[in-house]
Amino acid sequence: MFTNHLTNFIYSDTFANNLTFAIEIMGTLAFALAGIVVAARKRLDIVGVSMVCGLSAFGGGTLRDILLDRRPFFWVEHHQWLWVILALCIAAMLFLRKKHIELTEKSIQIPDALGLAMFTISGTQITLASGSPLLVSVLMGVMTAIFGGVLRDIACNEIPQAFSDHRPYAVIAFAGSWIYLAIEHFSNNDWLASIFAFLVIVTLRMLAIKFDWTIPSWASK
Amino acid sequence: MFTNHLTNFIYSDTFANNLTFAIEIMGTLAFALAGIVVAARKRLDIVGVSMVCGLSAFGGGTLRDILLDRRPFFWVEHHQWLWVILALCIAAMLFLRKKHIELTEKSIQIPDALGLAMFTISGTQITLASGSPLLVSVLMGVMTAIFGGVLRDIACNEIPQAFSDHRPYAVIAFAGSWIYLAIEHFSNNDWLASIFAFLVIVTLRMLAIKFDWTIPSWASK
Amino acid sequence: MFTNHLTNFIYSDTFANNLTFAIEIMGTLAFALAGIVVAARKRLDIVGVSMVCGLSAFGGGTLRDILLDRRPFFWVEHHQWLWVILALCIAAMLFLRKKHIELTEKSIQIPDALGLAMFTISGTQITLASGSPLLVSVLMGVMTAIFGGVLRDIACNEIPQAFSDHRPYAVIAFAGSWIYLAIEHFSNNDWLASIFAFLVIVTLRMLAIKFDWTIPSWASK
Repeated sequence: MFTNHLTNFIYSDTFANNLTFAIEIMGTLAFALAGIVVAARKRLDIVGVSMVCGLSAFGGGTLRDILLDRRPFFWVEHHQWLWVILALCIAAMLFLRKKHIELTEKSIQIPDALGLAMFTISGTQITLASGSPLLVSVLMGVMTAIFGGVLRDIACNEIPQAFSDHRPYAVIAFAGSWIYLAIEHFSNNDWLASIFAFLVIVTLRMLAIKFDWTIPSWASK
Repeated sequence: MFTNHLTNFIYSDTFANNLTFAIEIMGTLAFALAGIVVAARKRLDIVGVSMVCGLSAFGGGTLRDILLDRRPFFWVEHHQWLWVILALCIAAMLFLRKKHIELTEKSIQIPDALGLAMFTISGTQITLASGSPLLVSVLMGVMTAIFGGVLRDIACNEIPQAFSDHRPYAVIAFAGSWIYLAIEHFSNNDWLASIFAFLVIVTLRMLAIKFDWTIPSWASK
Repeated sequence: MFTNHLTNFIYSDTFANNLTFAIEIMGTLAFALAGIVVAARKRLDIVGVSMVCGLSAFGGGTLRDILLDRRPFFWVEHHQWLWVILALCIAAMLFLRKKHIELTEKSIQIPDALGLAMFTISGTQITLASGSPLLVSVLMGVMTAIFGGVLRDIACNEIPQAFSDHRPYAVIAFAGSWIYLAIEHFSNNDWLASIFAFLVIVTLRMLAIKFDWTIPSWASK
């Protein structure tokens, strides 16, 4: 009886929506904090910190929506989160010391992995639903997840970390997005495909950090 | 009688439109010249100077219009101004010497402040009219005013000045945009709100330059 | 009789379309290889190489389509070419050695000139057909041809080569685009105008490389 209720609840739209939204927010906050860390290293002012933080948090999804011609953007529909970002930036400037930066980077690893997985899958779903081909959907999923960070680094006059650190990040998102599409295709169960791909991306990403995996580099000089 | 005529004229749409357009052009030219100054420091060629000048002059409004899905852009509707920009760039390459650069920077401070005020307010108005929430309208107003310069600096491989110089520029635009919204809300008089916010932004900006104001930096190392 | 057939064939839509598409692909591949060369110099990882390569190949046309609000993008409509780009990037990382880079740059000069001509003209045509004024159409033609490279260089944290190398590249595209418009206006023959402007751009570009032409720089210090 209880299990039955629980099962119904877990499969209910309310639960799924709330869970999705909670993970989305965790991911967005992790991306925002990553933006603050990069901006802090460059000693930007409050305008720079806020803009870089906003780019980092919302840039990927906004770029996807511009490419797909979708409106409203996340930060327009859920504009109260702009206040959160702004408060976060002011708090960071008041309380974040250099010794905290490494700590912050460490503590956002898990929410960042959740964000990576969530934005990859939702980006893939949204692009596929707009009638795009498979590879385009996968690439848009990956871009949704990584282009916030790419725009953050470009605005801070750095080569994007996602393009140059030889760590599996976008590569895991790419694989996870294909796994999502494969399961969705064979099982016709979007929920199952999402959960499974989500777990694969998060697990691989955590393993990649723990065991310091690198991706193959140029074959030679 | 004469005062009556003058009052009618000042409140007439023609006068308001002409004044608005004149200030818009002054601001655009100031932004264009700021672009030429940055491009000159980097010794770009005529292509780079023109593109950076164009980005600086029209980048903020174009980004706003892309985000809001508005067409046509200013530089498409008023395409004759592209010729002016082009002529300005060629003239700069022929006649601008290094010793003129500082002079140019100084002489564009006032039109630049007019542009800051004008584009902040018009950006806020346009975004609000598209049905966006208040904070989104304020941020879009600020972005309209500063993102020309941000794109200019990114194209010149510099950290955007608006993000890093610790001077009140975007911060004044931010405050001015809220002042506009507050007066508009309480008086229901768009004309009054625009004029007042405009004067506040221009005055604060001129004071900031005169007294060399800075905005608070990171609390500590 | 045979000549008649040949003439019919050359003037047929099938032939024109196939030829156009073949040149477009050659140009795209040249731009893609130019992206790989820049990414290789920066030792980016496979994610960076693919993204910079993609930006270089499709960035100009995508920016044009965003500005004109056109969909679908080339890389969505012809998504199989994304696989080619991806395979090219993987092959480059496996087989491209430093000593090959200069060779690659040399061997893409001709297809790059074809791409420059093709994208300038098609960009001009598309913008004009959307009802834009002449100068806007010319500038959009130039931007279609050069902004892939501009975005490539920005993503690699370099001042865009097209803005700073004092070589006639965008300038030739600019001239060629006006030549296209002039012939189209006077002859009312789009096919003739395209062919002629195409040949002018390619010829001038090859001459510019051969004789190491430069464009005028700043008049003085």
